[in-house]
Amino acid sequence: MTLPELELYRELIEENLDRLLPPEDMIPRSIHRSIRYSACGGGKRLRGILCLLACEAVGGGREKALPASCALEMVHAYSLIHDDLPCMDDDDLRRGKPTNHLVFGEAIALLAGDALLTAAIKVMATKAPAGMEELYRQALVEMITAVDTEGMIGGQVLDLEAEGKDVTLEELMEIHRKKTGALITAALRMGGIIGRGDKKQLAALTEYGRSFGLAFQIGDDLLDCVGDAKKMGKKAGSDRKKNKATYPALLGIEESRRFLRLEVDKAKEALAPLGERAALLSKLADYLVGREC
Amino acid sequence: MTLPELELYRELIEENLDRLLPPEDMIPRSIHRSIRYSACGGGKRLRGILCLLACEAVGGGREKALPASCALEMVHAYSLIHDDLPCMDDDDLRRGKPTNHLVFGEAIALLAGDALLTAAIKVMATKAPAGMEELYRQALVEMITAVDTEGMIGGQVLDLEAEGKDVTLEELMEIHRKKTGALITAALRMGGIIGRGDKKQLAALTEYGRSFGLAFQIGDDLLDCVGDAKKMGKKAGSDRKKNKATYPALLGIEESRRFLRLEVDKAKEALAPLGERAALLSKLADYLVGREC
Repeated sequence: MTLPELELYRELIEENLDRLLPPEDMIPRSIHRSIRYSACGGGKRLRGILCLLACEAVGGGREKALPASCALEMVHAYSLIHDDLPCMDDDDLRRGKPTNHLVFGEAIALLAGDALLTAAIKVMATKAPAGMEELYRQALVEMITAVDTEGMIGGQVLDLEAEGKDVTLEELMEIHRKKTGALITAALRMGGIIGRGDKKQLAALTEYGRSFGLAFQIGDDLLDCVGDAKKMGKKAGSDRKKNKATYPALLGIEESRRFLRLEVDKAKEALAPLGERAALLSKLADYLVGREC
Repeated sequence: MTLPELELYRELIEENLDRLLPPEDMIPRSIHRSIRYSACGGGKRLRGILCLLACEAVGGGREKALPASCALEMVHAYSLIHDDLPCMDDDDLRRGKPTNHLVFGEAIALLAGDALLTAAIKVMATKAPAGMEELYRQALVEMITAVDTEGMIGGQVLDLEAEGKDVTLEELMEIHRKKTGALITAALRMGGIIGRGDKKQLAALTEYGRSFGLAFQIGDDLLDCVGDAKKMGKKAGSDRKKNKATYPALLGIEESRRFLRLEVDKAKEALAPLGERAALLSKLADYLVGREC
């Protein structure tokens, strides 16, 4: 994220991630180095930031949601390591660095992904602020449901099975809703739950999350299509090269941009019940339009 | 397990696993078939049974621990799928059937492992009997700690790094304590916690678990060394073929048998504070000696 208002949030998450993960020199060193290689010092921290902003948007203190934010970033890092493995997307670059398995080998990368999911659960089960254990249990249910076979894992399977096939717009949206959208929406709901948001506020965050997640994905596809490698940390055009379905491929670039703007507007409208406290969430949605696409 | 008294426990676990896992025909079908291929209809259900027996041994009703038992079996199945992958142990046979990745491909097998860990957490976070949510949170902490980088994952790393090297008895015990022992001890502690066991009872279960886990591993190594493929569902001598360190290789067969008997005796002695209610745990320890070794 390059929104300057969010730098503070990003730093909070980085610091806490560093504190919550096992130290690099812990035995066996290989796995702990591998975990930190992928989980620390990089990335937009989008899911963690959304969780903190949602907590504030319902009137909660962001520090209450900080452990959950870090858990979300651990889950995200786990999914990227496994997604990059040779038997999955077989990617060489991630955030401008060689992927985990290229540095540590496939076995350690596989286990580092497993360990990051494990660490995320342990944070959710042990790091709730005093008196918030039940809220953290509810937040854990949101998180774990977002990454099960009806969520992220299901989306990864659909994505694998769609490779090389003609995919309709509806199918593409279904893949993304599961593969990336579910965890983004869960991040917002987790923040809302931890901030003791009411039903109406949670519904607003959910609606925002759905449109934000879709807009985010369209933006990513556009970046891959028209952006350059440096801005993305991976090679531009890599989706097309792999023959992956994308919004620009299905709709064209102009129509994809229109679609993106429409979803950003819907995301911002969904925030109405949250009032002024959701100003940063609104700004973050606008930022998606402003990215280099 | 071929102890007839435990058949009822095994059936309870099988039935509940079947109920708790997503149906095979759920979309995407490939992943749900793959999950059930490894998690249902087979295996000794040792970890699940230990959890139920521990709950009863502290005076709890076994049905209270049934969701936790199933979660343990899901975690065990996840670990086996990932352990069998080509980048790990590269095994072809498991319980007499082709391993998951040979049937469903590496990508789906990887994700099925991920999904089983995910499903186990969801069970722990959502299926506690009414009023037992906090006990289930504590049990979840036991389970997740047993499989993190200080437990099972750490043991898998040490195991990988020991391949082809000379390993001392102490190093071998450390690998097994983490790789298989930690989850066995956790299973017992989880049952004890859910059954509202006191500190002394939990300490007894922990001590039993440590010796039982060690005896179980020595027995497995002996079976691999002297057993036949039919009894084990994998090829006898496969450890030796892979040049893996084992107790018989380090101590000889007779000394390994003595070691096994010693640990079984220690396990049974540890049960003293639990009295008559731990009779089945005691019998189960004896059974380890009686296996074909």
